[in-house]
Amino acid sequence: MPQPDHISALSVPSPDSLEDDLQAIWAKCVEKLGFVPNVYSAYSLRPQRLRNFMKSYNEIMLSDSGLSKLEREMIAVVVSSVNRCYYCLVAHGAAVRQLSGDPQLGELMVMNYRAAGLSSRQRKMLDFAWKLTTAPAEIGEADRGALRQEGFSNEDIFDIAETTAFFNLSNRMASATDMMPNPEYHKMTR
Amino acid sequence: MPQPDHISALSVPSPDSLEDDLQAIWAKCVEKLGFVPNVYSAYSLRPQRLRNFMKSYNEIMLSDSGLSKLEREMIAVVVSSVNRCYYCLVAHGAAVRQLSGDPQLGELMVMNYRAAGLSSRQRKMLDFAWKLTTAPAEIGEADRGALRQEGFSNEDIFDIAETTAFFNLSNRMASATDMMPNPEYHKMTR
Amino acid sequence: MPQPDHISALSVPSPDSLEDDLQAIWAKCVEKLGFVPNVYSAYSLRPQRLRNFMKSYNEIMLSDSGLSKLEREMIAVVVSSVNRCYYCLVAHGAAVRQLSGDPQLGELMVMNYRAAGLSSRQRKMLDFAWKLTTAPAEIGEADRGALRQEGFSNEDIFDIAETTAFFNLSNRMASATDMMPNPEYHKMTR
Amino acid sequence: MPQPDHISALSVPSPDSLEDDLQAIWAKCVEKLGFVPNVYSAYSLRPQRLRNFMKSYNEIMLSDSGLSKLEREMIAVVVSSVNRCYYCLVAHGAAVRQLSGDPQLGELMVMNYRAAGLSSRQRKMLDFAWKLTTAPAEIGEADRGALRQEGFSNEDIFDIAETTAFFNLSNRMASATDMMPNPEYHKMTR
Amino acid sequence: MPQPDHISALSVPSPDSLEDDLQAIWAKCVEKLGFVPNVYSAYSLRPQRLRNFMKSYNEIMLSDSGLSKLEREMIAVVVSSVNRCYYCLVAHGAAVRQLSGDPQLGELMVMNYRAAGLSSRQRKMLDFAWKLTTAPAEIGEADRGALRQEGFSNEDIFDIAETTAFFNLSNRMASATDMMPNPEYHKMTR
Amino acid sequence: MPQPDHISALSVPSPDSLEDDLQAIWAKCVEKLGFVPNVYSAYSLRPQRLRNFMKSYNEIMLSDSGLSKLEREMIAVVVSSVNRCYYCLVAHGAAVRQLSGDPQLGELMVMNYRAAGLSSRQRKMLDFAWKLTTAPAEIGEADRGALRQEGFSNEDIFDIAETTAFFNLSNRMASATDMMPNPEYHKMTR
Repeated sequence: MPQPDHISALSVPSPDSLEDDLQAIWAKCVEKLGFVPNVYSAYSLRPQRLRNFMKSYNEIMLSDSGLSKLEREMIAVVVSSVNRCYYCLVAHGAAVRQLSGDPQLGELMVMNYRAAGLSSRQRKMLDFAWKLTTAPAEIGEADRGALRQEGFSNEDIFDIAETTAFFNLSNRMASATDMMPNPEYHKMTR
Repeated sequence: MPQPDHISALSVPSPDSLEDDLQAIWAKCVEKLGFVPNVYSAYSLRPQRLRNFMKSYNEIMLSDSGLSKLEREMIAVVVSSVNRCYYCLVAHGAAVRQLSGDPQLGELMVMNYRAAGLSSRQRKMLDFAWKLTTAPAEIGEADRGALRQEGFSNEDIFDIAETTAFFNLSNRMASATDMMPNPEYHKMTR
Repeated sequence: MPQPDHISALSVPSPDSLEDDLQAIWAKCVEKLGFVPNVYSAYSLRPQRLRNFMKSYNEIMLSDSGLSKLEREMIAVVVSSVNRCYYCLVAHGAAVRQLSGDPQLGELMVMNYRAAGLSSRQRKMLDFAWKLTTAPAEIGEADRGALRQEGFSNEDIFDIAETTAFFNLSNRMASATDMMPNPEYHKMTR
Repeated sequence: MPQPDHISALSVPSPDSLEDDLQAIWAKCVEKLGFVPNVYSAYSLRPQRLRNFMKSYNEIMLSDSGLSKLEREMIAVVVSSVNRCYYCLVAHGAAVRQLSGDPQLGELMVMNYRAAGLSSRQRKMLDFAWKLTTAPAEIGEADRGALRQEGFSNEDIFDIAETTAFFNLSNRMASATDMMPNPEYHKMTR
Repeated sequence: MPQPDHISALSVPSPDSLEDDLQAIWAKCVEKLGFVPNVYSAYSLRPQRLRNFMKSYNEIMLSDSGLSKLEREMIAVVVSSVNRCYYCLVAHGAAVRQLSGDPQLGELMVMNYRAAGLSSRQRKMLDFAWKLTTAPAEIGEADRGALRQEGFSNEDIFDIAETTAFFNLSNRMASATDMMPNPEYHKMTR
Repeated sequence: MPQPDHISALSVPSPDSLEDDLQAIWAKCVEKLGFVPNVYSAYSLRPQRLRNFMKSYNEIMLSDSGLSKLEREMIAVVVSSVNRCYYCLVAHGAAVRQLSGDPQLGELMVMNYRAAGLSSRQRKMLDFAWKLTTAPAEIGEADRGALRQEGFSNEDIFDIAETTAFFNLSNRMASATDMMPNPEYHKMTR
């Protein structure tokens, strides 16, 4: 039985109906990745919201931070694992495999990060992300203290929190729209 | 015992250390609201992220949409109620009271939206927001169908989803940083 | 859309059909409060049960105890917050505001008591009430020990437990009957 | 390893230190049952509260109602099963066995009421009690409607609700005080 | 209302249609116990699976182990209590009563093992079984360490785990097939 | 940071200390698969239990059944996804990819089977497995009826139940022993 090939359960505008700035981004994606990530196509139903989403995404995942890009992707996958978000687990699981060069690490983040061989710093970081996702009202000074003890600064704690929070947003956009990931992610860095 | 008067459990930059565009926003807030919302002050630890947050916030809550501003605030409060987010319940509870002119409606959204006297359209909208917050992986075509039956379009469903998703982000930022709301909200439209 | 103005989803006897002792209480309520609390009207469907309910209520909330009246109201609101009971949150949230003279404290109890500025004694008391409400079978000697360490006596622990237990009863009566609070509570001590 | 023989984890007054009315009740219990139920002994730490508890208990469980005494005991056990309350499961499990003359029915209420051979009326009654115990905020008109369809009157629904609510109170008193049931219950109607 | 007297919600083969080895086991059960346990009859729908089930069962519950037979039955009942499995609670509750000669211990395992008077070794063993049943993905080295500190060897930990795991299997077989226990268990060792 | 390379958190016997029948199985595994599955090595701490485990496993997963081998592997992975079992998700995720020739299907079973393009028959089968895993006490005739409507026979329902139940056993063995999967699984059928 063939897997679903829709991009979103909501309507998806034709790429050539999009404004120029978005068409330019589409072209750059094809050039760099070979495809336009389906999250962009799905979000293009509301173009200004797509622009804001990309801006937030790029800042959170790619800009300067005390967290490495790999660490941010690890948070992305662990949050998506709590929320069982197919799109984000596929796309960001691939990113963990690529950035780490360690295919098993990607699987561990998807399946159960507690089984991974992590440094104490990374384990505490992911424990915080898990709790902030599952029981945000119970986060307290003890949880922040556990991060400070690993050497995380105020800015780092902010970034752990915002990465966690952002994937709690994007997981819900993907689930609400039944967003399907591009098939290209599956074969990356296996 | 006096209530906490910190803005955030993380450090908060002095307003006059901020770049000009942010200082201008601070001034406009004081002019229009009488105060700078603490979420801005807390977020100013990471200025570019604050800019993105404000941009997303304004688009989601204030731009043109098939959802009224009140409906978007109702979603904001119901999501914050699931997550028991003190900051967002205070600030957006006040917004529901103001936009509706109905103080009880604000309380109902904070305490239990199922007890409110809602139209079928609004009840279905909030049921979707509740489920997308508590069990995103279980959202399916039947849930979207229930919204379509109330006349919500693809764009409206997108906006319900994104408003829900955005407060799942902001609730977690507030909880992660122990953000305290400005006291001014408490007395509004009682 | 106007909010529901029923008292209960079950039938409510006409006040003048009630026996004399209850009519006298109705009169005293109007004299002292300006209204008859809807919980009395709803409960008057079963008059003897109403008499017992009032007797238990007055003993638990108003009689001599090692817990102050405010502390008992704080427990009432925190339990009602777990159970998302609209009636009790409105009525006892108002009582916390009145007894403390601190409107924010009322909101904190309704929304998330963990964000409040509490003494260690009160935090432990409310942690016990929360756990006894959500996971009664897991209460053990360690939980009682935490209260004893704050100086609570056997009688005090009994009273914390019974106040918690009583609101687990009354929250369920309010939810089962869709009991709506008198509108007068909303404006008190804002 | 012998089982615990304390009555309560809190202090228990000597019976002869109690006021006359309570001593008279103690004597009547010994005469009729052969023992004083431990819940009375445990509650006698706070004598007026014991009086109120007994009064509520007798009204709810023994007075005239559209629910039979057996049905009220079935609710008591199912609620205590949700809350895994050892005291109440032992004492009221025995009551179900006695009133029904059916030892298996007692075990079914303790272990999983869904496996029992119940009439539709009793199944709906217990489904309501289960939901009101586990998710009170989600009770709505559909749940009351399911009871009305089985012929339950307003007064009957009130009594189902109050029986459920009362055991949510007493389960928590028993768990908070580690109340142990009298050993005599174990052998009854086996 | 008479309790259900079916063996399974699925079809149950006539005993004389079974192969000789199974008929011999049936005969031996009648000789030793006075009846054929309904789990065998229900499982005989798939005869080779029944053979494997009996083999595993006998090895896990009856062969040499660092855990006593009573301890293994205690685990069986606690796991079945989590899963609210009527068949297994009845049959193995009886086994705890028989092996311990302590009817109350059987009830405590069924109702709430935390209220029992257990040695530290047995309490830790059952805490492990509870957590492995309710939150297997959160078991970690600290949980195994708590068992090692009580003197449990690697083989003992294996046996605690497998007994727990086996009843997570058999509880689900009983619930999936609505398996009813033989009435003979109810009266044993009361 | 290299991933854990232990087989089990409990001790693992040297292969040449095993009895001849097990050594023969080890040799056959190496011949057919290129490696001995770590679950066998971990289980060899208790050799007779390993023999029983293999016998049950082979019967449940490989013998004649109304369920295809792929369907049984799909159940295995969905159950392991509920329980977040790293070992079983890796090993049986690979089996789904191999048997279906569809790498995405494997990922969907691991991440969220509700997002897959399944026949109604398979969706109902997996819904049953999910519920039997998460809420076994709530399985009732309606759940079995949903399977019968898809054409599943009594034997088929038995097999769905037993496959689900078996992975609830094996997931807990893997989690209790921190069993790590052989690295060979990761690259299969990508």
